[in-house]
Amino acid sequence: MSGMNGAQALIRTLTGAGVEVCFSNPGTSEMHFVAALDSVPQMRGMLCLFEGVATGAADGYGRMTGRPAAALLHLGPGLANGLANLHNARRAATPLVTVVGDHATYHKRFDAPLESDIDALAGSVSGWTRRSLRSADVAADAAEAVAAASAGLIATLILPADVSWSEPAEPAPALPVRPPSPVPEDVIATAAKALRSGEPCTILLGGTAVRRPGLEAASQIAGATGARLLCETFPARLERGAGLPPVPRLAYLAEMAAPQLAGTRHLILAGAQAPVSFFAYPGQPSSLVPAGCEVHTLAGRGEDGPGALAALADLVAAGAPVQSRATAQARATAQAWATAQAHPAERPGLPDGALTAEKASAVIGALLPEGAIVSDESNTSGLGLGSATAGAPPHDWLTLTGGAIGQGLPLAAGAAVACPDRPVIALEADGSAMYTISALWTHARQGLDVTTVIFSNRSYAILAMELERVGAAGEAAPAGKAARSLLDLPGLDFTALAAGLGVPASRATTAGELAAGLRQALAEPGPHLIEAVLP
Amino acid sequence: MSGMNGAQALIRTLTGAGVEVCFSNPGTSEMHFVAALDSVPQMRGMLCLFEGVATGAADGYGRMTGRPAAALLHLGPGLANGLANLHNARRAATPLVTVVGDHATYHKRFDAPLESDIDALAGSVSGWTRRSLRSADVAADAAEAVAAASAGLIATLILPADVSWSEPAEPAPALPVRPPSPVPEDVIATAAKALRSGEPCTILLGGTAVRRPGLEAASQIAGATGARLLCETFPARLERGAGLPPVPRLAYLAEMAAPQLAGTRHLILAGAQAPVSFFAYPGQPSSLVPAGCEVHTLAGRGEDGPGALAALADLVAAGAPVQSRATAQARATAQAWATAQAHPAERPGLPDGALTAEKASAVIGALLPEGAIVSDESNTSGLGLGSATAGAPPHDWLTLTGGAIGQGLPLAAGAAVACPDRPVIALEADGSAMYTISALWTHARQGLDVTTVIFSNRSYAILAMELERVGAAGEAAPAGKAARSLLDLPGLDFTALAAGLGVPASRATTAGELAAGLRQALAEPGPHLIEAVLP
Repeated sequence: MSGMNGAQALIRTLTGAGVEVCFSNPGTSEMHFVAALDSVPQMRGMLCLFEGVATGAADGYGRMTGRPAAALLHLGPGLANGLANLHNARRAATPLVTVVGDHATYHKRFDAPLESDIDALAGSVSGWTRRSLRSADVAADAAEAVAAASAGLIATLILPADVSWSEPAEPAPALPVRPPSPVPEDVIATAAKALRSGEPCTILLGGTAVRRPGLEAASQIAGATGARLLCETFPARLERGAGLPPVPRLAYLAEMAAPQLAGTRHLILAGAQAPVSFFAYPGQPSSLVPAGCEVHTLAGRGEDGPGALAALADLVAAGAPVQSRATAQARATAQAWATAQAHPAERPGLPDGALTAEKASAVIGALLPEGAIVSDESNTSGLGLGSATAGAPPHDWLTLTGGAIGQGLPLAAGAAVACPDRPVIALEADGSAMYTISALWTHARQGLDVTTVIFSNRSYAILAMELERVGAAGEAAPAGKAARSLLDLPGLDFTALAAGLGVPASRATTAGELAAGLRQALAEPGPHLIEAVLP
Repeated sequence: MSGMNGAQALIRTLTGAGVEVCFSNPGTSEMHFVAALDSVPQMRGMLCLFEGVATGAADGYGRMTGRPAAALLHLGPGLANGLANLHNARRAATPLVTVVGDHATYHKRFDAPLESDIDALAGSVSGWTRRSLRSADVAADAAEAVAAASAGLIATLILPADVSWSEPAEPAPALPVRPPSPVPEDVIATAAKALRSGEPCTILLGGTAVRRPGLEAASQIAGATGARLLCETFPARLERGAGLPPVPRLAYLAEMAAPQLAGTRHLILAGAQAPVSFFAYPGQPSSLVPAGCEVHTLAGRGEDGPGALAALADLVAAGAPVQSRATAQARATAQAWATAQAHPAERPGLPDGALTAEKASAVIGALLPEGAIVSDESNTSGLGLGSATAGAPPHDWLTLTGGAIGQGLPLAAGAAVACPDRPVIALEADGSAMYTISALWTHARQGLDVTTVIFSNRSYAILAMELERVGAAGEAAPAGKAARSLLDLPGLDFTALAAGLGVPASRATTAGELAAGLRQALAEPGPHLIEAVLP
């Protein structure tokens, strides 16, 4: 096509490669990209009022579709504002294409006010980074970016303004997407040998292995061998609920994770990293691998975890009489696993009375709709959610993969764009919500079916706990006034904030009010927010 | 002192070196720092709900005091969230110490979820970066950080958790602060020669040269030589108002800046960079220096601009009869400058009727109190503010030095902490406000005397303008629906947002309502917000 500029060719290349949504927070250097959106109706540009919302939404979209969305950002500071949620996306192995506008190539040497080291920032999160330097190249660069991203990476394309506005350019064809690498047979055989050893085995599942196929294969293995199953602490997307094999998540707190792993002689990693304490604590080990335990990586990053589990199940659960080789104890465990292979449908009863975190979890467990997508950034308030929702109808659970708070509301936006026919529930701590609160505006503007529950305890409760756990304060020397003033969050009114951003909101101080609010929110289309006021 | 850990020694070193405020957004790895605040009452920790608020507040504090505040951030993602306002602070040459908590030294190799490349991020904004690796070293490192920052840099100290919690450590004495370098005599003589050449000269003032001493020296030079005076487009802190020499700011738009510089044969830079277009535009030059103009750097970064101007004034305005050598035209200009050396006290009348951006500027000009500190991120809506406030009582004007929006509300917080006896006025575009809106909570929590005026035009108006200026849309091909959807900001209610964050708020749709709201806000202590609804 004649007369196409770099931006037009870029966007056509993205849509040709299956990238159909661009979560955007543009500036002047991206104006040709923005204008070009009107010439490519296949690409849906969606405005976010802060870059961290755009990147978090792209993460949510990628987790739910397996295909990259694009995030359009403005120069170095725009990328910087998006980095925290890109960090989470990197840890989630989410496919994601970041397009970072830059000054025109000839303008950079003048050190204009917005000039900064974009490449250094991009490198901190991206598995693939390129600066397009000619309009004729940008489409092919974009095609490579999509292919790279599709392998579970953040691909960052730096787009100078003149490359965007210059001609000639034409779209490039999509490149083949490389599937996850198959796991070599000898690696599977090694895992099988460990499982048949009669020694206690634990399979730690993560990445794509915590969706239904991986879970079912793992459950079959556990049923046949007595292996324990655990899910990584912060899975990108965990399928769970009634009818799915229940796989407990490894606890966040090392002292709770230790008994989950205790006695394991062989730890088999299927899409998960070797377990490590989230933070260091004085005198505590960083690694959570029990002493004397051998670690086997069945499937690492970029490898086909579900496929490896299926092959392993064929080896240990189909052919040889595995249970005859195992100990009596292992046989009993295996039987227990087999009967519990699918979680029964069960929900907690609806509690009443003044709201507590535990009752809030029960309400959510009682009402969680089938097919829900839960964006969970509830932190300490959500400790009871796992058990309260374990038997709810099948749903997806998205967690804070990288620990960079401010993920939940943006992630919910992207998940809702990806799956417009499914209800999205954002379970959000009050402190975390404030990092990217403007995501609510995107919920409203796009009419997304997101129900946000704010767990309002008016505190960075996790830090009040960590303050003691790291030994910085405790019973002997409680936190002083200065320290407390950095952990308390008085005076936030989330119903007012929601109103300011266009989202209908209510406040719940009793379990009944939360249930009523949640029922109404789930019954009506579009976004809602409920401020759950906790003690 | 025995039994002091790294965090305690660090904080004592900071306070000993004059760093008395720490704008904080901590996490687990900073808990010993937080706990240590109670043992050092000289350090005031102030919580911000987002890191960009902490860094922007530290910028505002540093601009007003000339001394660094500290910003306490949590690992790579915390630093990332603070980078945009650190970018602005870097451009403002603000003294600022960033303390970035990191995982314990022995924990880093385990690639825990929050692990990322802090050093790469720090390097993108910092003039000084160090990772303290032993508790015995951290105090001396902190002393160096303060000394480095005091020269107008961002100094970033990366603080591993175990360095924070370990002993032994003891405070380090403050290091001498190096004053700005004096400008060599031959450089001053070269500038004097240019000023005496009889050829048209312009002095472009920036940095510390736009405070009263520099402005008065420059005005004296202009009066004697006929040189034109201009202030850089985005000064960190401009002193202006009645009784101060009026120095127009170089326009943001190149087509408006060109006539300001037209005809200049000698451009003398005093604390400013050579003028450059903020963005590149197709077919337009990046440099704003007129053809055939010679550029003389009288004082660059880190040099004593006000001192150089005073010395230059002594050379050209005290001794030799400069005017006799100048042309008739230059003499006339010099006379005009001399009479206008101090701006007269004058204010616009209070307008009435439906609010417009122009009327809002007039209201602010009519009511701006003496000694006000204006944090200006009003963007397009504030185009009339300069002239409307030029004759208001003396005040400071803080601008968006680096172009990374989301500066205004945090900067106002820091300025108010720095100058508790002065009224702070944040003039804020609606789109920009949304990047760091939680700064309002800090205004409320700290009881800061900040009056925020939101210019609500429900649009990224500057981008609607830039879309045409870059040639991406125009009369022939107006912006389409997709492009417009990325520039419009419907549905924000800033009075509700303010209520949600604890700040009393009102809405003004007429000039009279804005005046009434502003009068009330200025009369009452503590924070207020007025949403000025523009057409």
